[in-house]
Amino acid sequence: MTVLSTTGTELPVAKDVPENSTTAIRWLATHSSRAWLELVMAHPEQLLIDHAHCERKAASAAIRLMFTYPTDTELSAALSPLAREELEHHELLLGLMSRRGIALRPLDAPPYGARLRTLIRSREPERLLDTLLVAGLIEARSHERMGLLARHLEDRELADLYAALLASEARHFGLYRLLAELRFPRAAVNQRLGELAQGEAAILARLHPKPRMHS
Amino acid sequence: MTVLSTTGTELPVAKDVPENSTTAIRWLATHSSRAWLELVMAHPEQLLIDHAHCERKAASAAIRLMFTYPTDTELSAALSPLAREELEHHELLLGLMSRRGIALRPLDAPPYGARLRTLIRSREPERLLDTLLVAGLIEARSHERMGLLARHLEDRELADLYAALLASEARHFGLYRLLAELRFPRAAVNQRLGELAQGEAAILARLHPKPRMHS
Repeated sequence: MTVLSTTGTELPVAKDVPENSTTAIRWLATHSSRAWLELVMAHPEQLLIDHAHCERKAASAAIRLMFTYPTDTELSAALSPLAREELEHHELLLGLMSRRGIALRPLDAPPYGARLRTLIRSREPERLLDTLLVAGLIEARSHERMGLLARHLEDRELADLYAALLASEARHFGLYRLLAELRFPRAAVNQRLGELAQGEAAILARLHPKPRMHS
Repeated sequence: MTVLSTTGTELPVAKDVPENSTTAIRWLATHSSRAWLELVMAHPEQLLIDHAHCERKAASAAIRLMFTYPTDTELSAALSPLAREELEHHELLLGLMSRRGIALRPLDAPPYGARLRTLIRSREPERLLDTLLVAGLIEARSHERMGLLARHLEDRELADLYAALLASEARHFGLYRLLAELRFPRAAVNQRLGELAQGEAAILARLHPKPRMHS
């Protein structure tokens, strides 16, 4: 059984999702394509650099959320440890890169995050709901992709790194979803999560073919 | 022996700095005033809320630095754990506030950070040097003030919290200074640090009298 589509990124996961797949992956509207996996596996150095940037961006996004809602103590109390964990992953990647003599360099980032943010409605309280769910979907996609990397990379050190990281991504998805459910009716959360997951899948289907975590 | 000036914030520390004071404090061009200490001790709730915001801002500033210099692996490797530590402090404060039933709320922040940033020269490499040293001076000032709070607060739980936190602030000052010394000649670092410390003291002398960590 595979969670890879051989035909692209458009295949829905709903009916053929493996029994043991997690809640995070179940919410995604498409599998990642085999083309994506082959591309990143052929360029592990670019994958690592891009991934280091991604972890830093994830920490930054969580902190930005705390600044946007500075009176929401519960939100800050939940996102502060999450941001720390993203930074820990960032450091794990820098450590591995350092051992391999890979230096950070700027990489053109795919417009995945920027396009996802256009799905966030601008009026409150919809803005908060959408921001939490978009952040959650990015974590869910990371979880799915790290799972693929853990299973398919032949480089054992890299495969083990992804195996070690992917559980946190699923937890982070769960946390963002929980933060939404503590603030909005569950039915509204689930409906919007489904809509945004469709949007995420559509964005992913049109991204440029570069070896990036979110291309 | 006291590190407090009884006459305001303008008193230079150079000749009467206590033997056991740390390098961080030695670099400051003024002591904090007794007026400041009395004000924050009279408003511990505002102090805690402001301090929580400050720790989050410190984490955010460290991450912003990584984004500004995305190819500097060493900088990222040093600032990522620092940002995590700021977030840990943020969580310590939120925990204490939660136990005391204090909720986060927006507080008008003194223009300390914004005015300090005007001292940063806009051209590289001066910009990097100044950014590191300004960040260091904010840590040094926090260190000095947390030391005062640890010694003078009668609320033991708060005094102990500040006693536990202040060593990190001194380490953070040392880290920012070290990052500067690894990139610039030591004499240039020390000269600019002295100039910026004078600037910091001048800014502090004109801040509004509110119970804030950096007022």
